[in-house]
Amino acid sequence: MPDIKSFMQIQYIFELTGTAFFAISGAVLANEKSKPDWFGATFIGFVTAIGGGSLRDMLLGSYPLVWIKDVSFIYAILIGIGISGLLYPYLTKLRKSLFLFDTLGIAMFSILGTEKALSLGVHPIVAAIMGMFSAIMGGVIRDTLTNEVPIIFRKEIYATACLAGTTLYLLMDYMGLERNISFFASGLLILVIRIVAVRYKLSIPQFIKD
Amino acid sequence: MPDIKSFMQIQYIFELTGTAFFAISGAVLANEKSKPDWFGATFIGFVTAIGGGSLRDMLLGSYPLVWIKDVSFIYAILIGIGISGLLYPYLTKLRKSLFLFDTLGIAMFSILGTEKALSLGVHPIVAAIMGMFSAIMGGVIRDTLTNEVPIIFRKEIYATACLAGTTLYLLMDYMGLERNISFFASGLLILVIRIVAVRYKLSIPQFIKD
Amino acid sequence: MPDIKSFMQIQYIFELTGTAFFAISGAVLANEKSKPDWFGATFIGFVTAIGGGSLRDMLLGSYPLVWIKDVSFIYAILIGIGISGLLYPYLTKLRKSLFLFDTLGIAMFSILGTEKALSLGVHPIVAAIMGMFSAIMGGVIRDTLTNEVPIIFRKEIYATACLAGTTLYLLMDYMGLERNISFFASGLLILVIRIVAVRYKLSIPQFIKD
Repeated sequence: MPDIKSFMQIQYIFELTGTAFFAISGAVLANEKSKPDWFGATFIGFVTAIGGGSLRDMLLGSYPLVWIKDVSFIYAILIGIGISGLLYPYLTKLRKSLFLFDTLGIAMFSILGTEKALSLGVHPIVAAIMGMFSAIMGGVIRDTLTNEVPIIFRKEIYATACLAGTTLYLLMDYMGLERNISFFASGLLILVIRIVAVRYKLSIPQFIKD
Repeated sequence: MPDIKSFMQIQYIFELTGTAFFAISGAVLANEKSKPDWFGATFIGFVTAIGGGSLRDMLLGSYPLVWIKDVSFIYAILIGIGISGLLYPYLTKLRKSLFLFDTLGIAMFSILGTEKALSLGVHPIVAAIMGMFSAIMGGVIRDTLTNEVPIIFRKEIYATACLAGTTLYLLMDYMGLERNISFFASGLLILVIRIVAVRYKLSIPQFIKD
Repeated sequence: MPDIKSFMQIQYIFELTGTAFFAISGAVLANEKSKPDWFGATFIGFVTAIGGGSLRDMLLGSYPLVWIKDVSFIYAILIGIGISGLLYPYLTKLRKSLFLFDTLGIAMFSILGTEKALSLGVHPIVAAIMGMFSAIMGGVIRDTLTNEVPIIFRKEIYATACLAGTTLYLLMDYMGLERNISFFASGLLILVIRIVAVRYKLSIPQFIKD
């Protein structure tokens, strides 16, 4: 059975990997939309990867920001951008893998963001929102900078899946369940909702029916 | 004559109500522009309601943010969104009432934002700007996210009315006038400027004449 | 030989002048794009001038923000806007001077931003990024608010020049060279890269070749 320390190390490696995946998805998406140069692609990859967590921490007043304290996250982003540039033709053929990586990323960062907010003593409702923000706001900032309609306004279940997962985590945490079980169960819920929604083209009801 | 405590309670109820109205105006506007789903409408209502005050407090480094400290503001927003969704057909017929509520909202939040900035010890010019930011930046962020040209760049007197009100408040405060009198007089000035400007189609001179 | 104090005074005057120039370039650009009124032009000039430094300080958690602590920066902006409005016909004929002022501005604020970040104890890579952010993010926020594609995504060498300069500064600082020499050499590098790039239409390689 792994001890706490090795579990923390595994989680840290996941966080770095997730950050790199977010940078890859940012760079690939930016390239499809606006054919940027290397700087533009790197900038967008960077913002996609660190935007959500940075906004969360700035809203919570929790300093220093993760990537400012630990420059390994910047290396992870640069490696992600490099991979995107070198393996682009292969990556675009891997649509399903890219989708899966993005979904794994939002699932993990939703729950980690919720935990971070909780550890700062906020109300559970605020923690659920902050978890979702961690996962999606990098993409929202990316879409705003590139003049796209942000992903959260498209007819897809994306942020809502994150919110469902963070809510489940908070419920399980409230019920006193073991952290790792809550972590994986709520992450899995995000994964399942997102995959099922895309597979069966499910969507949230329109706010006002025409 | 009401004592301080009951006045503070009345003001608190006004703040919650103003927050709900901002959420309503955000959701209604978002719906007219981009037919969002329930999540998108809620997100835009939320950002419209808390964006201005959050930006003010993040610029001033004043933590925790109001809605993170006091979750009642989140409930007020959710109630506002719910009302928008249920009563939408009636609300869209109440154009004039919606306009009035929005104007009451920017008037109140301009002055409250100015007071908060002053209480943190900033220069009066900064306080006037922060008051205006409290009132208008939620709408600016909303417009940026939905790819609209922000309201402050349209040919309308909006932010300028807020700035006039916050300036009057600072003058009255400087002259040592009683707080509640300054509060209502400067809020009223914003209300009157905005209503007169819309009624008579007044506008600020163009920066550079063609 | 000037003493430290008079050098600091010279630098302070440069900072105020650079802030005014950023406000001028913001107002002139805003006017070309969207014919704003006086408020809109002032708002855009203000955001262009203080946006980069404010974002840097908010990311670093370094409070109070420069223009909130020292209201002279607000006066510098207002003077810049006033000059833009009054001398607009002359300014638009001075394309080359405007370009030079903007380039001087980004060169100076890149290095000053790097120094500020370093003084707060961050990793040199973070300091280089923060220096570049100080110089360019005001323009990025300006472009986002006015629904333009941000300058950093156009086919121009702009942010990359800043990054080259901030990297040179960090190298010279690491080698223990005298601060003023490092300051001017790295600022000059930004100036030269930008001027040569525009003169010979150089650009960064496209991220993915078509």
